[in-house]
Amino acid sequence: MNNFQFFNPTRIVFGKNAVDQLAEQLGKHSGGKILFHYGSNSIKKSGLYDKIIKILKDASIEYVELGGVQPNPRLSLVYKGIEICKKENCSFILAAGGGSVIDSAKGIAAGVFASGDIWSYYLDFFKPIPQALPIGVILTIPAAGSESSPSSVVTNEDGGYKRDIWSEAIIPKFALMDPEITFTLPPYQTACGVADILAHLMERYFSNTEHVDLGDRLSEGTMRSLLVNGPIVMKEPENYAARAEVMWAGTIANTGLLGKGREEDWASHKIEHELSGIYDIAHGAGLAVIFPAWMKYVYKVNKNKFLQFAVRVFDVDMEFSDIDAIINCMIQKLECFFKSLGLPVRLSEMNIDSSRLHEMAQKCFAHSDKMGGFMKLNAGDVEKIYRLAL
Amino acid sequence: MNNFQFFNPTRIVFGKNAVDQLAEQLGKHSGGKILFHYGSNSIKKSGLYDKIIKILKDASIEYVELGGVQPNPRLSLVYKGIEICKKENCSFILAAGGGSVIDSAKGIAAGVFASGDIWSYYLDFFKPIPQALPIGVILTIPAAGSESSPSSVVTNEDGGYKRDIWSEAIIPKFALMDPEITFTLPPYQTACGVADILAHLMERYFSNTEHVDLGDRLSEGTMRSLLVNGPIVMKEPENYAARAEVMWAGTIANTGLLGKGREEDWASHKIEHELSGIYDIAHGAGLAVIFPAWMKYVYKVNKNKFLQFAVRVFDVDMEFSDIDAIINCMIQKLECFFKSLGLPVRLSEMNIDSSRLHEMAQKCFAHSDKMGGFMKLNAGDVEKIYRLAL
Repeated sequence: MNNFQFFNPTRIVFGKNAVDQLAEQLGKHSGGKILFHYGSNSIKKSGLYDKIIKILKDASIEYVELGGVQPNPRLSLVYKGIEICKKENCSFILAAGGGSVIDSAKGIAAGVFASGDIWSYYLDFFKPIPQALPIGVILTIPAAGSESSPSSVVTNEDGGYKRDIWSEAIIPKFALMDPEITFTLPPYQTACGVADILAHLMERYFSNTEHVDLGDRLSEGTMRSLLVNGPIVMKEPENYAARAEVMWAGTIANTGLLGKGREEDWASHKIEHELSGIYDIAHGAGLAVIFPAWMKYVYKVNKNKFLQFAVRVFDVDMEFSDIDAIINCMIQKLECFFKSLGLPVRLSEMNIDSSRLHEMAQKCFAHSDKMGGFMKLNAGDVEKIYRLAL
Repeated sequence: MNNFQFFNPTRIVFGKNAVDQLAEQLGKHSGGKILFHYGSNSIKKSGLYDKIIKILKDASIEYVELGGVQPNPRLSLVYKGIEICKKENCSFILAAGGGSVIDSAKGIAAGVFASGDIWSYYLDFFKPIPQALPIGVILTIPAAGSESSPSSVVTNEDGGYKRDIWSEAIIPKFALMDPEITFTLPPYQTACGVADILAHLMERYFSNTEHVDLGDRLSEGTMRSLLVNGPIVMKEPENYAARAEVMWAGTIANTGLLGKGREEDWASHKIEHELSGIYDIAHGAGLAVIFPAWMKYVYKVNKNKFLQFAVRVFDVDMEFSDIDAIINCMIQKLECFFKSLGLPVRLSEMNIDSSRLHEMAQKCFAHSDKMGGFMKLNAGDVEKIYRLAL
């Protein structure tokens, strides 16, 4: 186990009517005007928007609105939010939505205090964020885990670059999480969320760091729970119990806890970011395509880790005559799981051909020469992984 | 899953030489004089005491010392600490030790701001703690999980009452956790720690709240890791990897995370507190005796939960002809596990006879009429559990 620090001070308020606690939670953190940040019309259709506005007005909390966050949140809107916060002298950001809205809010929060262009921080993952406005979250999509994570991913429309920042300063102060809010999520978005959560777990799980037994077992338990409850929420969108399990798994998967003490991987995420950066596909769907391909390409580096995963998470029978067969069986099971959720497992299913694979592989390394922890990858490796996903 | 809140802002600094970060962590929280609180001579023998003093002096941090915390920490020393903090105007408490030292520090921290006698808060679990001095921890014994928990257990020598408080105000600000520090822990203390950690997991696991799949699986993973690594640290006290797994499991088991969304039990802890309150035995040893007896008494309330535990944690074969046999097999396996660590599993092994069982059962209800979540117990039930443990 490697040395580590763990710090996650987000207050999770979880369960039915969690949103009713908005005024109380805001009261702990904000005295001044807040920026109310959200996405498309879905929170207006569901009534959540009206509910939030009523709570803010009833509590006499001054606010200014910025809606319009798109999936794969755009840098241009982050710039706009920074400008509004500065002009209106906002002291807090309330993000109501999924990972895209929260990540956009984090970009704005950090951007207010950034020296120069906030994009320069996204281009350099290790450039320290000096400070950020405090953020509160009302979560509507279990997926990114951004509600209690220290990271934000934003897309620069100029070139389709999707990059991330990491800082304790952008960990939300609170997250209100009501599983009932997710009842109306469309099936495809629900499925993409499950894939994203599973991917966050696997990015940490596949590590060559030795003696990470507890972390492995915590991840395995979370993954098994997701394999059980993911299909339930697809079949029964209003099953509170299963929606709650998936929502809580989404947070647990990305607080950082499950990766402590080990080198993490994150190559699949980076490889996927180029896909959604260029083709604007759903991140979770991209991950469902990329992860099996990545596994096929890298598993030989540490077959034991994949064996453990196959046996403990996917219940593949452990028989020692053909190790590769066991691992391939697991990859098939993983693909079947994604398919059962209605997700693609090949680029061709999303009408993506081989024409830009080379370009994407090169772009992966445009601002960093590092890729992967389980197996260090270069641009040639990444292109081969894209080809395995065709 | 029940509605819940989760908030745990302790900064965990984990790994080799974690103590070297003491000055930096203190610098974030303390400007004034600190109370340096510790227990017996063990931190002097190990060199930790000298190391801490040197760090404090090098960083020009003013401090006042209070050693002498005993296992089952005494209220009288808490009073003394409160007096010192008030007189010396301390603004921070540094606790170097195991659960007893940390719990004593928490009592002092809360006592400084308590209105009236701090013991009145211990007598009434639901009396809100108004405020507390911030606390930092250097952990030497993986067991209580007090390094990041909101609770403190203290014994009032007047009557041998062992009672607890619960408040976010007493969650430590940081915990420095170096597994190497635990290399020199005596075997019995190591074993008691493992039993205590396992007990914290089981107190939360055995719940009748439905749909707590993820929490169950996280707990099962932590317990399985402990079942593997506990015996290793007994056999190889200087095995860093296994010491690290046990130490990290101790924290995970008691941050509160694994009990979220469910009614917890905690009867076994309360039943044990009367034992260690009167006989001054090690808490972990008392739990190794009480837990199997509690299981035998209560399992029929919800056999499915015990079946799941038997199959998933203790690998008992699931065969459906005799459910009670499966559960009894698990209880035997649990007792064997405790015995393999060198712990007692019967009161008689600690020379405790039946003479005070009735008195202890009554004392359990001296300040509260509530006991147990999995099965509500009355004094008669508790006496029967003590008898099963004879």
